[in-house]
Amino acid sequence: MHEDRNQNDQARTTGINPDSSLFEELEPGILRTISATGRVEGGRLRKAFAVFNRAVLGQPLATKEEPHQRLSKVKALPILASDNISSSAYATEEIIRVLAIAGLGALSLTLPISLSLVAVLAVVVLSYSQVIRAYPTGGGSYAASRENLGAVPGLVSAASLLIDYVLTVAVSVAAGVQALTSIAPQLYPYRVVIDLLVITVLVVGNLRGVRESGNLFSVPTYFYLLSLLTMLTFGFFKLLTGTLPSYVPPPDRLQEAAAPLGFLLILRAFSSGAVALTGVEAVSNGMRVVKPPESRNANVVLIWMAILFGTLFVGISFFSAKVGLVPDPTEQETLISQLARLLVGSGPLHFVIQAATALILLLAANTAFVGFPRLSFVLAADRFFPNQFLHRGNRLALSTGIIAVGSLAGLFVVIFRGSVAALIPLYTVGVFVAFTLSQAGMVRMWRREKKPGWRISIVLNWVGMVVTGAVAVEALMIKFVHGAWIIFILIPLLVLMMTSIHRHYQLIAKELHLEPSTSLPKLSQARLALVLVADLNKSAMTALAYAKSLAPEVIAVNVSDNVASMERLRKRWEHWAKGIQLVCIEAPYRNWTGALISYINAISKENPDMLLPVVIPEFVPRRWWENLLHSQSALRLKMALLSKPNVVVIDVPFHLET
Amino acid sequence: MHEDRNQNDQARTTGINPDSSLFEELEPGILRTISATGRVEGGRLRKAFAVFNRAVLGQPLATKEEPHQRLSKVKALPILASDNISSSAYATEEIIRVLAIAGLGALSLTLPISLSLVAVLAVVVLSYSQVIRAYPTGGGSYAASRENLGAVPGLVSAASLLIDYVLTVAVSVAAGVQALTSIAPQLYPYRVVIDLLVITVLVVGNLRGVRESGNLFSVPTYFYLLSLLTMLTFGFFKLLTGTLPSYVPPPDRLQEAAAPLGFLLILRAFSSGAVALTGVEAVSNGMRVVKPPESRNANVVLIWMAILFGTLFVGISFFSAKVGLVPDPTEQETLISQLARLLVGSGPLHFVIQAATALILLLAANTAFVGFPRLSFVLAADRFFPNQFLHRGNRLALSTGIIAVGSLAGLFVVIFRGSVAALIPLYTVGVFVAFTLSQAGMVRMWRREKKPGWRISIVLNWVGMVVTGAVAVEALMIKFVHGAWIIFILIPLLVLMMTSIHRHYQLIAKELHLEPSTSLPKLSQARLALVLVADLNKSAMTALAYAKSLAPEVIAVNVSDNVASMERLRKRWEHWAKGIQLVCIEAPYRNWTGALISYINAISKENPDMLLPVVIPEFVPRRWWENLLHSQSALRLKMALLSKPNVVVIDVPFHLET
Repeated sequence: MHEDRNQNDQARTTGINPDSSLFEELEPGILRTISATGRVEGGRLRKAFAVFNRAVLGQPLATKEEPHQRLSKVKALPILASDNISSSAYATEEIIRVLAIAGLGALSLTLPISLSLVAVLAVVVLSYSQVIRAYPTGGGSYAASRENLGAVPGLVSAASLLIDYVLTVAVSVAAGVQALTSIAPQLYPYRVVIDLLVITVLVVGNLRGVRESGNLFSVPTYFYLLSLLTMLTFGFFKLLTGTLPSYVPPPDRLQEAAAPLGFLLILRAFSSGAVALTGVEAVSNGMRVVKPPESRNANVVLIWMAILFGTLFVGISFFSAKVGLVPDPTEQETLISQLARLLVGSGPLHFVIQAATALILLLAANTAFVGFPRLSFVLAADRFFPNQFLHRGNRLALSTGIIAVGSLAGLFVVIFRGSVAALIPLYTVGVFVAFTLSQAGMVRMWRREKKPGWRISIVLNWVGMVVTGAVAVEALMIKFVHGAWIIFILIPLLVLMMTSIHRHYQLIAKELHLEPSTSLPKLSQARLALVLVADLNKSAMTALAYAKSLAPEVIAVNVSDNVASMERLRKRWEHWAKGIQLVCIEAPYRNWTGALISYINAISKENPDMLLPVVIPEFVPRRWWENLLHSQSALRLKMALLSKPNVVVIDVPFHLET
Repeated sequence: MHEDRNQNDQARTTGINPDSSLFEELEPGILRTISATGRVEGGRLRKAFAVFNRAVLGQPLATKEEPHQRLSKVKALPILASDNISSSAYATEEIIRVLAIAGLGALSLTLPISLSLVAVLAVVVLSYSQVIRAYPTGGGSYAASRENLGAVPGLVSAASLLIDYVLTVAVSVAAGVQALTSIAPQLYPYRVVIDLLVITVLVVGNLRGVRESGNLFSVPTYFYLLSLLTMLTFGFFKLLTGTLPSYVPPPDRLQEAAAPLGFLLILRAFSSGAVALTGVEAVSNGMRVVKPPESRNANVVLIWMAILFGTLFVGISFFSAKVGLVPDPTEQETLISQLARLLVGSGPLHFVIQAATALILLLAANTAFVGFPRLSFVLAADRFFPNQFLHRGNRLALSTGIIAVGSLAGLFVVIFRGSVAALIPLYTVGVFVAFTLSQAGMVRMWRREKKPGWRISIVLNWVGMVVTGAVAVEALMIKFVHGAWIIFILIPLLVLMMTSIHRHYQLIAKELHLEPSTSLPKLSQARLALVLVADLNKSAMTALAYAKSLAPEVIAVNVSDNVASMERLRKRWEHWAKGIQLVCIEAPYRNWTGALISYINAISKENPDMLLPVVIPEFVPRRWWENLLHSQSALRLKMALLSKPNVVVIDVPFHLET
């Protein structure tokens, strides 16, 4: 008796009975689905896809499981710092590649340029530790620029970072695959295909979710650090014992100086080497994945990153210059690989170093797979990016952003044929624009808010702004013709896109806004309903019967180019359905949609105040492929009808048994 | 007064007033659209597409304009015979390519093999002239096999022909582009891209319609015949004056005999040369484009085709063997091009011959663009092929078939990298299977019907059946490992597909069939309607108001993973719409569709007899790209809802002004 009343109560608040095993009622009117996975509705193909999805991506996670997916410092370092640390795998090579244009003598400048870049890195790291302190919830450069400088600088900063993330994936994957072709030259012709395969693996790995990524990717950074430090130790030992070998370039690489060593060339080498600083901002953007206290933990990660990177970069530059290495112009063997062969020999240790380099570069690419989706999530939440970037997949990963960064990086890899040297000129400009804007934002903030210790902070950020701004301008000017112009065009385009999107969402919100006082308009029942009929059959009958229940008057409309078949239909119709009017429309030029829309326009003109129901008999075969056997003109028609106001499209399904 | 009554009459029979300038009323209840083109409804993109379409494809043609699109004999010869005649451009080369495996000495067999192939051709032509006599409306091999041998042999024949058409396009285009790279070797690396471009041009040309194709393509056949006959005349002159040069193979082509000249190799050369017979059936399949009297005209075309082809083929084989030509293994220069340079020199005449060869090969590919769509139209009319192949485009061309043959041929070209030699082994088997079956069908027919003159006809067809059947078996066995196995798999697959399609259409026709006595079931008005709401806004309001006009009880359903936002919605709801029940469903795993379908299932269980209306507020932005900014979950949902019986999906549009 008591139970009965409960049942009736629930039926009253939810419309369904409580004996349904699929829902529990949380409170009156609020249901929760019980099964994690849910039965998959639909045909065999849809079910197979669901099974495949689960096998590749893992079991779905509930929304509230999100906060537990945080990382300790030891796991956050590989995720957030690998981008920057991995730059050591190619930064020196790119500096020497430029200097070598002025002949072998110019290579003595490698170490000074590297040291000046480490100095810039120190400035940037100190500036960013202020950003981390001020924005413990993450957001990084975008948040710092937007809140303190305004919407447009914020968007410029965001656009720069988005481009930077895409290029991080493209450059890191290309460089990682180069580390492989250095030990397996037979793979060299397939490098673009391998690049794309690696990107696909990264997309899938990230769709599985962030904690798994932590597990999957935490070892390589430490592996890389260990093997590179071992190589440098070998080098120091050889240096001290006076057994350091000297590099003998292959005959085809004994190039003459193609240009004199001018100031511009030194600047170009400096801005090519500035890739060394990419990835520093990843820590401040990705703080949400760090365990609380976020600011403290992120700062520790940032400092360790700078120390480790600086050591490797200076060490590699020192030994490369010392032995006089020249980069391979075909990019088949990397500089690191050449250096390793000289310092540790061509044995297994060389192999280990190359494997470690390839692995950390993949991990660096993975950093962007964390950063891009998070930044696009923030942008979407602020209504500057499409809604879809807010969507979390089955495993809580930001699927749209992950797939977007993977696809765009793949595009860059294909366009630039997997060449790191070709991608580098595009890379640094965006990074330094974002650096400069975020530091400028911080300067503005400290001046306004004057929090405790603001005097030291403002000096740090001011120096950071000036230094990174100078590098940004320098890099854009020096590398403009080598590809930086692409970035010069892309950033304004992206900003324009984001502001258009924002305007669109704002207008819609305004138009959809409902005053609390508005009451529900009372529509009278429709006077007239149209039914599209192709033939007089059971499917049409169901639709006609439904239309009859909607409106007192029903008109069946048949559009065809075949007058004879129209006449036949009329004859059968007269014998059968005297109550319902049939209108046949001959469209001699076979533009069915156009003819029907014209007819509906004429009907609407006669009934200007009415929401006209157009009933479409929908034919649902049992197997998905059978849809291919029926012309999809109904679908095209529906799309066209949807674009008409005052028309309500009603699909009445007819289910085939066989 | 009189006019007024008329207007009322028309409104009664058509639902609209006669002052509409878009329709004329043919008889009571039958309207015809007046404008040829119709205003294009929809956004700028759709309009731009319509304008582009018209520019590329021409003005639309009305359905009844079809019968005028027939061709005279002089124009039908290039359309229907070019496939066969153009085979002379590569048949000899493929014979010699096989014989050369046994060394240069084996080349003396080129002429005997060619002559035996001409003998087979004579048999086939005589047999086909019987098919043309018996089936003046066209349909060719498929009709002959189906009517006389039954459905499965008919379908085997059809499948062989469809494959043959696709390969005709692939081989002819590849060979035509080779004729070009023979005079412009710098194009050789881009041959696959050029092949695909040429196929695209053919698709567009054919979408414009058949008569234009006749005009566009009638010159090249005569141009080819003239230039090749000129070349052979030069040859005879040199032969008679004793100045015929002797071919000196380049050093890398002076190959040793790789295999002895055994019987199997001779058979392989014969079956490679059998490509010479491809295209003979085109005349009987494409008879509908010939002006009446179809049989007589088609027979004249057939005989002329055989005479012209035979002359060229024997001439080319004779001179190639005489001067001792060896084909280029990289397929950069064709045999014809080498022969032309020897007979007429490397001057402008050589250039003209190559241009003519390229042109006729393109025209041959065009033959398949006539044949494939017509055969698939016949198959679709017999319900063995999807309905879409019945569809005529704006210009009355069979668009689906044209696009299908172009796409499939493009696929073959890409897979086989545009190599004629690689495609040839696939080509002949299908052709000879179709030959054999149609001749067998004819034998059966003559025996049964015993029309006047049947005794001679039956002998001709019997000989044709035996000869072509022997070649089919021989070609399959000899070339099985070289690619013919693909055809051996494809033909049964196609037959299986066509019978499945047939079964599907039959079942549907049965299920949809309406007994004349069936009366319209009377549905009562729905008791309950569901409305999907994401938020309480104007779009939701419109949908709710419409649902209220449909059913006395309305339930608004909100699915979300965010309990907080659900609570907010409930609060606003209580203040606003007390009359309408709101059910919130929390789906913690974000499977919105699954949760909703479960809920609808539960509702349907409570109301088993009711067609449940589900109202979806549809959001129609003004510009198409704005759709990208709104999650397409509504679309996915609709697809899932359509697969449920007892659910009627109702789209209520909300049109944005801005």
